[in-house]
Amino acid sequence: MIIDCHGHYTTAPAQLQDYRDAQIAHFENPSAPPPRLADISDDQIRETIETNQLRALKERGADMTVFSPKASAMAHHIGDEQVSRTWTRINNDLIHRVVSLFPEHFIGVCQLPQSVGVPIRNAIEELERCVVELGFVGCNLNPDPSGGHWSGPPLTDKSWYPFFEKLVELEVPAMIHVSGSCNSNFHATGAHYINADTTAFMQFLQGDLFTDFPDLKLVIPHGGGAVPYHWGRYRGLADMLNKPPLTEHIMRNVFFDTCVYHQPGIDLLFEVIDIDNILFASEMFGAVKGVDPETGHNFDDTKRYIDALNLSAEDRHKVFEGNVRRAYPRLNRALESRGK
Amino acid sequence: MIIDCHGHYTTAPAQLQDYRDAQIAHFENPSAPPPRLADISDDQIRETIETNQLRALKERGADMTVFSPKASAMAHHIGDEQVSRTWTRINNDLIHRVVSLFPEHFIGVCQLPQSVGVPIRNAIEELERCVVELGFVGCNLNPDPSGGHWSGPPLTDKSWYPFFEKLVELEVPAMIHVSGSCNSNFHATGAHYINADTTAFMQFLQGDLFTDFPDLKLVIPHGGGAVPYHWGRYRGLADMLNKPPLTEHIMRNVFFDTCVYHQPGIDLLFEVIDIDNILFASEMFGAVKGVDPETGHNFDDTKRYIDALNLSAEDRHKVFEGNVRRAYPRLNRALESRGK
Repeated sequence: MIIDCHGHYTTAPAQLQDYRDAQIAHFENPSAPPPRLADISDDQIRETIETNQLRALKERGADMTVFSPKASAMAHHIGDEQVSRTWTRINNDLIHRVVSLFPEHFIGVCQLPQSVGVPIRNAIEELERCVVELGFVGCNLNPDPSGGHWSGPPLTDKSWYPFFEKLVELEVPAMIHVSGSCNSNFHATGAHYINADTTAFMQFLQGDLFTDFPDLKLVIPHGGGAVPYHWGRYRGLADMLNKPPLTEHIMRNVFFDTCVYHQPGIDLLFEVIDIDNILFASEMFGAVKGVDPETGHNFDDTKRYIDALNLSAEDRHKVFEGNVRRAYPRLNRALESRGK
Repeated sequence: MIIDCHGHYTTAPAQLQDYRDAQIAHFENPSAPPPRLADISDDQIRETIETNQLRALKERGADMTVFSPKASAMAHHIGDEQVSRTWTRINNDLIHRVVSLFPEHFIGVCQLPQSVGVPIRNAIEELERCVVELGFVGCNLNPDPSGGHWSGPPLTDKSWYPFFEKLVELEVPAMIHVSGSCNSNFHATGAHYINADTTAFMQFLQGDLFTDFPDLKLVIPHGGGAVPYHWGRYRGLADMLNKPPLTEHIMRNVFFDTCVYHQPGIDLLFEVIDIDNILFASEMFGAVKGVDPETGHNFDDTKRYIDALNLSAEDRHKVFEGNVRRAYPRLNRALESRGK
């Protein structure tokens, strides 16, 4: 099997954005009409998936996508706790509908109802609902719900611990994934995303999170941000900070995905990062939707870059399937229950 | 010649930090004694340089370093405009003394007296003093004087234009270089530095700065942050944002240095970035001071990685000398006046 661990429902029917627009308008001006999600039919969902993610999945030769709401639209910096909670629930329910319509090809990962200044503990209820009731296998955890102001504490701060405890208890990993940016310094997908990946890794390097949570599994997307390119810097910083070598510390709990959109980047990722820490992913359709004029193929068709590495059968199985099943135990059990 | 375009005086005599400590104490409590810089002798400066940067420069086989004050100590977020101005002037004067003592091996690049909320125009006087009176050939421009809160406008905002006009007039480049971080999310050299490099590049991609300043030259240090590793992402984003290809836009004005501390990272940098845009640098001694157990050599001995590329004589000359002389015209003229 070939499992893409990082896909977003960026093609949802227009009713979803209409709801969001009305929700924000109502929050900003309570005299505006309260938001109402117009009916979305199964056929509409089918069409948005079949003509987009499922089509490309099949064309590119993959089997399944670990699927979550559009990351840039989580926008935890907008509104308040109630706005975030309602918006999150609607998005997760929509993912559940996609998964119910295409159970062979999609499995759910949830958005969380985060908000600036609101304890992450308050997100546990929605996590449990999605995992226990809806069969989701992971979540996207935003390390900066302020949207580019980084006003909260680092991920190694004890305030995050109740949530990590629940992740371990439920046996689900979190992908560390920011949302849109409301800071004009940071383009969302060109700066904020990549910076957050790099930042999270360095927080883990400085901290001691995985001594407290030896079973916690976290995924840093977008190829680990800047980290593999600067692997020597991070190895050296670990040494300077009197931390264990990266392979004996962070990399027992952290995975990088393969959302790196050119061959030399993928080459580097596989050269410096242990094969056991790499998860196949494309973030289809996400930050970069076009065709690379240098190759004639989509930038985000990352399977092609990995195929070009000519990995051994064993390594290929790890990246495309084995590591993902290990990082997402509930995905593994769901597949096993289907005889896969 | 082999010219390292990125070195900091991280080994300055203790009197400098003593002054800074007193300056901060006095700012926080005006009843504390006003700061006074104790005398620093030429012999002291000679010793701090000869046993450190100059020793390593010679051992590693380079000839000259473009030298500036310790970047993490600029700390533009501390104090107010007057504190920053005085601290900056002291640091720049100290660089001038180093250069005067070792003119064959060091040439100056200045710190700027930036402060949160203070117009960058106010930094022009110190820039002119350093360039015109002290013979400096460039400056370090902090894109985030708030130290990790990113509270100011992006570099493409018109508020920066008076400074860019002066850079062009004086024919000096700026290295885009943040300082220490006062945001607990960002480790200075492990996250804030690399994020700032990535952020600046994406700001340039989004903006149109180089149409307004076709002769402006900017250096993005630390190998361009995450950018070369994600070169496909940036090529794709340029296309999605209806911007010209990177090689016809940003890369006519922007250089990346080689402060990437392992061989695979340097390999990637030279594979994806045009040789004309790469400047030799080590940031000696900077973020990573140790010896790589995998090679037995210092992480930041970047010349070894470049030597291992077996570049053609022409490309080698570009990276080690030609590009730096082109990016820093006043350095070129200084060398020419010495018959070099």
